[in-house]
Amino acid sequence: MSLIVQKFGGTSVANTERLMNVADIVTSTYKAGNQVVVVVSAQGDTTDDFIEKAAELNDRPSKREMDVLLSAGEQISMALLAMAIQKLGYPVISLTGWQAGIETDINYSEARIRKVTGERIRSELDRNRIVIVAGFQGINKQDDITTLGRGGSDTTAVAIAASLGADLCQIYTDVDGVYTADPRIVKDARKLDEITYDEMLELATLGAQVLHNRSVEMAKKYNVDLEVVSSFSRNPGTKVKEGSDMEKMNVSGVARDNNCARVAIINLPDEPGVAFKVFSLLAKHKVNIDIILQSVGQKNKKSITFTIQQDKAEEVGKILAANKEQLGFEDVSINTGVAKVSIVGAGMASNPGVAAKMFEALAGAGINIRMISTSEIKISVLINEEDSEKAVKAIHEKFFNV
Amino acid sequence: MSLIVQKFGGTSVANTERLMNVADIVTSTYKAGNQVVVVVSAQGDTTDDFIEKAAELNDRPSKREMDVLLSAGEQISMALLAMAIQKLGYPVISLTGWQAGIETDINYSEARIRKVTGERIRSELDRNRIVIVAGFQGINKQDDITTLGRGGSDTTAVAIAASLGADLCQIYTDVDGVYTADPRIVKDARKLDEITYDEMLELATLGAQVLHNRSVEMAKKYNVDLEVVSSFSRNPGTKVKEGSDMEKMNVSGVARDNNCARVAIINLPDEPGVAFKVFSLLAKHKVNIDIILQSVGQKNKKSITFTIQQDKAEEVGKILAANKEQLGFEDVSINTGVAKVSIVGAGMASNPGVAAKMFEALAGAGINIRMISTSEIKISVLINEEDSEKAVKAIHEKFFNV
Repeated sequence: MSLIVQKFGGTSVANTERLMNVADIVTSTYKAGNQVVVVVSAQGDTTDDFIEKAAELNDRPSKREMDVLLSAGEQISMALLAMAIQKLGYPVISLTGWQAGIETDINYSEARIRKVTGERIRSELDRNRIVIVAGFQGINKQDDITTLGRGGSDTTAVAIAASLGADLCQIYTDVDGVYTADPRIVKDARKLDEITYDEMLELATLGAQVLHNRSVEMAKKYNVDLEVVSSFSRNPGTKVKEGSDMEKMNVSGVARDNNCARVAIINLPDEPGVAFKVFSLLAKHKVNIDIILQSVGQKNKKSITFTIQQDKAEEVGKILAANKEQLGFEDVSINTGVAKVSIVGAGMASNPGVAAKMFEALAGAGINIRMISTSEIKISVLINEEDSEKAVKAIHEKFFNV
Repeated sequence: MSLIVQKFGGTSVANTERLMNVADIVTSTYKAGNQVVVVVSAQGDTTDDFIEKAAELNDRPSKREMDVLLSAGEQISMALLAMAIQKLGYPVISLTGWQAGIETDINYSEARIRKVTGERIRSELDRNRIVIVAGFQGINKQDDITTLGRGGSDTTAVAIAASLGADLCQIYTDVDGVYTADPRIVKDARKLDEITYDEMLELATLGAQVLHNRSVEMAKKYNVDLEVVSSFSRNPGTKVKEGSDMEKMNVSGVARDNNCARVAIINLPDEPGVAFKVFSLLAKHKVNIDIILQSVGQKNKKSITFTIQQDKAEEVGKILAANKEQLGFEDVSINTGVAKVSIVGAGMASNPGVAAKMFEALAGAGINIRMISTSEIKISVLINEEDSEKAVKAIHEKFFNV
């Protein structure tokens, strides 16, 4: 008997028909002799509807109350899924974040899971019940409801799988696995049977949008076997696990991230500690910095250029403007018309030809590279956003259609 | 400084405009120097929408999961109201049933409140916050969410007022008080400034639909001053309190209840304990019995006729059919086309002329009386449902337009 955690996203539970489909997948797994914990997101547009209702009342609602509101979404979908499973005649119980013991820190709207106590989940599994847990939500030490932000339900699923020592954590989504490139852009992209945590991590971070990096990081840390699989097709998905065959493939995929902005802080004083001041200020506001480039200018001045998530661009502009005097820079320029395209693959670092091949593909397509960043298993370039599709196609062609 | 509990029903919080109106009422009370606890129901049609969604998946969902689903409704409305109050610039916090310490028994879908621990509410009031509590919901000893059934939010409000020792519990609704008859039926019905708990209790039980009897019973038990007031008109409402002036008025109002069914169990054995068997069986299934009539038939047989809530009629039919042999009766007939019309008033028992006057009014309108029931402060008659409006008008005319 295996213990399997299955996570279903908002599109998978969007309506009656899809809920019955999910109930079918879950009960098939249970019937096959497994213990099953199901993690669900809010139905399709529920979250957007809530955000709209809130916006009509208040353009700046408190994050605490926003979390109270949003967390009702998973409570609705988990109860409905429980009813669908009851309809098929199986024993089932649904648990909210606080009932399931999903304990988080106090950061409303982007809380991090501290601990899954999971006693209730275990006792319900011992009673042979299918257990449904609300994704995306938890409870903090003040007994307040928190939500986990982007990728929250994936993270809930992996955290539960880690805490219960599950044999497998399946992430059901609307694609049937991880591809060598986005199949919507590259027609002949290939599905990968297996991928390592590190490769998946780079792909997730880089905007492949199949799994969120938080969940992959946690899966890696606690060695949880993941599988990305479609709730619609019933095809085998992609397994994400510790790599045993690290050098088999040079490049496992091409990813694109359009949620990018390039920030240039121009003519900072060229003193020790200036970069630290800039980045600690942004860290305090929970802004993730990606690629960083520093250049020395004239007269003891230097400029720092870096990329951030595009949806943080306005906030970063305000933060920097408010601290202009303290940081002592001359000007800031923010460009949101950029995108990041990356190739990911274990063993890439030991193959110096890989970078050259990528740049050759971009040059051949007439695409200008604005920034470059490399790691052990990836190479990223920042380019103009309008070139990003062309770039993905050209790179994929170069590496996969030889 | 007074502590005031204000309860707002589903129509009062149905949309953005109405939520802002409620926020205005609440903050005016707070601004006047009072501590305020607000109890809210789910928005307008939310509950019906949930029930419909559930019905699409399962015609017999478990009550536990139904409660999980329905309780999301108040969680949504309380968060939205908190945002509306924040918009007006006042400190506020919303609490679910479990956060507010509303502890209930384990009867899903019709749980009874055992205790309001209320520590969290008190500590938030001490921090000068307006506290919003989700009505209609609680938590049982298994840490599961329960809902309180009909009149649940009123009951939540009164229970909180009792537990905190509030100075006043205001029930905001879409009518501006308690009338001598339903103003939608009787054009010249008069609003009462004051009414006693007992009178209100009879009116509530009898279908005046302003306050649910559970909440009035609790208010009477813990001596909570109630006020029924409109969230739309801002007129003074009707105060419900211990009567000091009990003999002032003979008849305080006329009420109608269409949610009635008449059940006749025909030819039961005429033995001691038969009525007990019937009614304990129904009590086990939580069926409330109202007017009871017993008649002796032929050959050691008797028949028992009683009224129940119309929405329990189907269930009662099934329960009786399943126990036909054990109870030993011959036949059951259930008639849902009946209504109960009642007059209520303190001091009525000492005025024998009141009943005669009521029956005269009904006779004058050509209405046939099928069953009669009297108490210290009310007289009820069961009549055909189609006569009920006519009956209310005739009785009101007789008593109030002399």
